[in-house]
Amino acid sequence: MSKGKFIVVEGMEGAGKSSAIHVIEALLQQHHIEYINTREPGGTPLAETLRTLIKATDHQETITQETELLLMYASRSQLLANRILPALNQGQWVIGDRHDLSSRAYQGGGREFDDEVMESISRVTLQGFKPDLTLYLDLDPEIGLSRAKARGELDRIEQEKIDFFHRVRNKYQDLASKDSTIVTINAEQSMELVHQDIINTVQQFITKQG
Amino acid sequence: MSKGKFIVVEGMEGAGKSSAIHVIEALLQQHHIEYINTREPGGTPLAETLRTLIKATDHQETITQETELLLMYASRSQLLANRILPALNQGQWVIGDRHDLSSRAYQGGGREFDDEVMESISRVTLQGFKPDLTLYLDLDPEIGLSRAKARGELDRIEQEKIDFFHRVRNKYQDLASKDSTIVTINAEQSMELVHQDIINTVQQFITKQG
Repeated sequence: MSKGKFIVVEGMEGAGKSSAIHVIEALLQQHHIEYINTREPGGTPLAETLRTLIKATDHQETITQETELLLMYASRSQLLANRILPALNQGQWVIGDRHDLSSRAYQGGGREFDDEVMESISRVTLQGFKPDLTLYLDLDPEIGLSRAKARGELDRIEQEKIDFFHRVRNKYQDLASKDSTIVTINAEQSMELVHQDIINTVQQFITKQG
Repeated sequence: MSKGKFIVVEGMEGAGKSSAIHVIEALLQQHHIEYINTREPGGTPLAETLRTLIKATDHQETITQETELLLMYASRSQLLANRILPALNQGQWVIGDRHDLSSRAYQGGGREFDDEVMESISRVTLQGFKPDLTLYLDLDPEIGLSRAKARGELDRIEQEKIDFFHRVRNKYQDLASKDSTIVTINAEQSMELVHQDIINTVQQFITKQG
């Protein structure tokens, strides 16, 4: 049995990740491809506990940038070992709601950790593992945040100032421009056009797998 | 007001760390030096939550070596920012039950993470901060573990095989031999002699502060 593929959807709050994931699911179902879903941070009992700790706004102490970074990667390590790798090894595909690129963008770009630090902690945690295909939904952070706000309360990271999100977007765009496995989708288009771009990209990817 | 000093007690299970800490406390009290106590992992509400996650033996999933390493440093980051640095800045001394050297020994030595990886994650988390004085209580792991077992149940890390603890001791000894702020105490001596060595070392240290 051939190994499964790991497709990740990336982008900022309000970029339309959930809807993009539904489009990908429908396409995999059409092709009778078995898949599981993951989300980060989270996805195992321990990783979900860490997700809650990372996102909480009611801590009685300062959460350092370093702790945020380390907990993100701890969560990723648990998810990789206990869900992603076992599924791929059984031939299932994995659709990820965020993965390493989010940490590169939010902690590397937003929090301004050095590229060297990000590379080092990523290498320790993932040992070279990376998604087969990443769809990065790109849009102006102002638009994304106003959509996210309309949906409800913002978590601890979503409460950052707008400059933070501009740095996140810049880092996303920079990393996407350097990696052929990351496809940028213009998420400021109408939903129909966004979905058509996603379908085209994922359909091409499936076709290439033979 | 002059800054406080950070004294750390290190060593393996059953080496006598708790009793060493009581000896140091008594000495600081004699000198009318104000101090707080810390323990690692732990020491803040979030860090104590991480301590529980690290030590638990009833997880429904594999805890990866990487997660253990990352959670140890996340705990350390919280403790440093929220307890150790504020105390030192107010002129209080801090007596630490374990600190960075434990990760170097257990995760670096025991789990065999590369020195480069350990150096990198330590630098990100601590940004060069280190204890003013470390007392390393050295003893044969067989002796330490039999003492620890006599006290009750062993946690997840304490359940490792004996080879693990020999690697931990080797790393402790190696790092102690290279750092003049780490004083090795022979913890296989009688309790009276161990305590006398601790008192001599800490008394000298206090005297040097003027």
